[in-house]
Amino acid sequence: MQRSGPVDGTPAEAEVFTTVLTSGPIARADIARLTGLSSAAVTRVAKLLIDEGYLEYAPGEPAASDETRMGRPSSPLRVHADQTGSFGVIVRRDELIGMVCDLAGGPRVAERRPLTDNRVEPAVAAVAAFYRDLAASAQRLGFVDPPAHLGLSLSGDIDHDTGYVRYSPFLGWRDVDLGAAVSRAVAAPVVVENDVKALTVAEQWFGLGRGITNFAVVTIGTGIGCAIVVDGGLVRGAHSVAGEIGHLPLGDPAVQCHCGAHGCVEAEASTKALLDRCRAATGRDDLTIGAAVELARAGDDGVRAIFSRAGQVIGLALASVANLLGPERVIVAGEGVSSYDLFETAIREAFAEQAFGAAHQVPIHVRDLPFEEWARGAAAVAIQELVFPSRQRVANDMRRRTGVRRG
Amino acid sequence: MQRSGPVDGTPAEAEVFTTVLTSGPIARADIARLTGLSSAAVTRVAKLLIDEGYLEYAPGEPAASDETRMGRPSSPLRVHADQTGSFGVIVRRDELIGMVCDLAGGPRVAERRPLTDNRVEPAVAAVAAFYRDLAASAQRLGFVDPPAHLGLSLSGDIDHDTGYVRYSPFLGWRDVDLGAAVSRAVAAPVVVENDVKALTVAEQWFGLGRGITNFAVVTIGTGIGCAIVVDGGLVRGAHSVAGEIGHLPLGDPAVQCHCGAHGCVEAEASTKALLDRCRAATGRDDLTIGAAVELARAGDDGVRAIFSRAGQVIGLALASVANLLGPERVIVAGEGVSSYDLFETAIREAFAEQAFGAAHQVPIHVRDLPFEEWARGAAAVAIQELVFPSRQRVANDMRRRTGVRRG
Repeated sequence: MQRSGPVDGTPAEAEVFTTVLTSGPIARADIARLTGLSSAAVTRVAKLLIDEGYLEYAPGEPAASDETRMGRPSSPLRVHADQTGSFGVIVRRDELIGMVCDLAGGPRVAERRPLTDNRVEPAVAAVAAFYRDLAASAQRLGFVDPPAHLGLSLSGDIDHDTGYVRYSPFLGWRDVDLGAAVSRAVAAPVVVENDVKALTVAEQWFGLGRGITNFAVVTIGTGIGCAIVVDGGLVRGAHSVAGEIGHLPLGDPAVQCHCGAHGCVEAEASTKALLDRCRAATGRDDLTIGAAVELARAGDDGVRAIFSRAGQVIGLALASVANLLGPERVIVAGEGVSSYDLFETAIREAFAEQAFGAAHQVPIHVRDLPFEEWARGAAAVAIQELVFPSRQRVANDMRRRTGVRRG
Repeated sequence: MQRSGPVDGTPAEAEVFTTVLTSGPIARADIARLTGLSSAAVTRVAKLLIDEGYLEYAPGEPAASDETRMGRPSSPLRVHADQTGSFGVIVRRDELIGMVCDLAGGPRVAERRPLTDNRVEPAVAAVAAFYRDLAASAQRLGFVDPPAHLGLSLSGDIDHDTGYVRYSPFLGWRDVDLGAAVSRAVAAPVVVENDVKALTVAEQWFGLGRGITNFAVVTIGTGIGCAIVVDGGLVRGAHSVAGEIGHLPLGDPAVQCHCGAHGCVEAEASTKALLDRCRAATGRDDLTIGAAVELARAGDDGVRAIFSRAGQVIGLALASVANLLGPERVIVAGEGVSSYDLFETAIREAFAEQAFGAAHQVPIHVRDLPFEEWARGAAAVAIQELVFPSRQRVANDMRRRTGVRRG
């Protein structure tokens, strides 16, 4: 095998590391059971990862399962959190939120700062300055190797493999080679990911996606987004398009969306769509979304109906994901969750009516996650890049013709 | 490793066998490259599969890539088609279509017979009698081991792991332990699969799904069905529900579907929905679907508009799959394809309007496949069960907590 990074970067390494990360401390026999790898392979890969400092033996008793199944005792393994770490930054329209995470994804530093000019060049400079400050903070945390990898997340159509931003409507960016630009500015490896996908990695590693292999995250707010995990892997789409739940035509066909199509979920349920409708209904052109929420909570029937209609369309969108993919659960997140009380009944009713057969059983979990958790997702994506850098390449090559999912 | 069948049934075996099946004759070095397995693992697994008679060396020159990459020449591998085979039968409302395939999925015998009584018990007896006749034909084909495994496919909500039919609307079956009943009747291993999923396995192994890892098959006709392949694996859904594209609410919300929900694709675009509308439009209660197609082709505007509207809803459904999952291609099949000319313009226009961003690039392929090809899919599912019987179990256990797709 050829070495392409700190470790081989093979799928087996990625699996062993991630199993220990999400389930550790864990005995090697249990890693073998969970991954389907042979005991010999787990032992070989674990040794590599220990040699590189990524894994370590957990203190305490030897694991019983190793004693019985492998003939000799050995301590359970855990991620060596202090070996190194990564940075995660989410770029929002007017704000950067940054995290320093250790190798186990544990949050060590969290910081926000305003983004005063979100045109590309100033934004790249602001990210670079933020990175340097976060790196200075990280220096004081006593990592064996100071973290270097930066995970960047932002909304829009992102090519994760190349770090290229095809289109980010909310930042107004088109065709920006962001990964390369930031990497030059910080002189460190940078990986770029769509913000909802990065959040979904955080949920998969540390949140409600732990221990399950099929789930979806739907975000409501400025945009209506979605990321889907099928059999443990994030769906990226052949053309880097996937999860565009905001552009399913489940709404009123008479309503045109900013994308040009009609009846899109986003055209009725995004924050802007809600606000436009609430302003029209109340005749108050200066109404803010916060004020609209207050009016609805105070019992304004017209405004309540607007939120309720948005909830209905969102419920149909959740049912569409359930009918097409049958996830084990659907997680609803995003800023819109702060006024979930105004959507909830309509969401549940529409979902119950439209979910087909056993899809009724798909539970919907509402998560009010701070943007730090989104930044943590970006840091998790950077950890993936650090620990198994060839992961994407390997994933793209493998099984291209086999038609068999490995495991 | 424990032996659980003719071979280990590990994911590596499944991958090597399927790579040789879909890409053979193929050198071991190329198998290693395509699967991401190490050369040593490929050699070990290939030896096992050769010992069992499933693979053989192809006659002819040693493969160049093996000479250069592995230091010594070796012949390319192919599936030993005559070693054994499998049976595939699709159960339709009034007909059984059966195939005998060799181990490489090559069709050897194809036969149709009427299903005069489609209640469960007579249908099981008819399938068993058909199996015995197919087995007698297979005896004369000179297989080393006579085929025994039977793959059964039918429309509806099928639990592939248990062979249980939860609900098959077109047969009117509910909660039928079909796999067990047929297995008892034929004294052979039986695997049951949803018909669209089985067809998708055929496309993946022998058709337009060869060589790609992300695609969808959408069937139009009596029902509107869908099966989705993500990263090489068929999406089955956590609750055995997936691919229910017929119940996305993309149509007129005023129209109620047989499932109880409103606006379902099936409520406007299934054969029955089309026929009901054409009868209402023409005032001819005895109109057949064939006659409706003739009327439309002859230029009847009212009937043409009904087909066109169905095409529009189908186009929105294809765009929804493209927006959510970004497949490399979408394959449209099913009986409805025989009148695709009446849907085509509306499908293309609706797809073009609704596909988001790069999803516009997703090509749509129309396939007019005979039901023998569907039966071949059922036989392919039986080959999977024969060659890697623990595949499903392994797949369910693996990666359950890792969050990393192996390759």
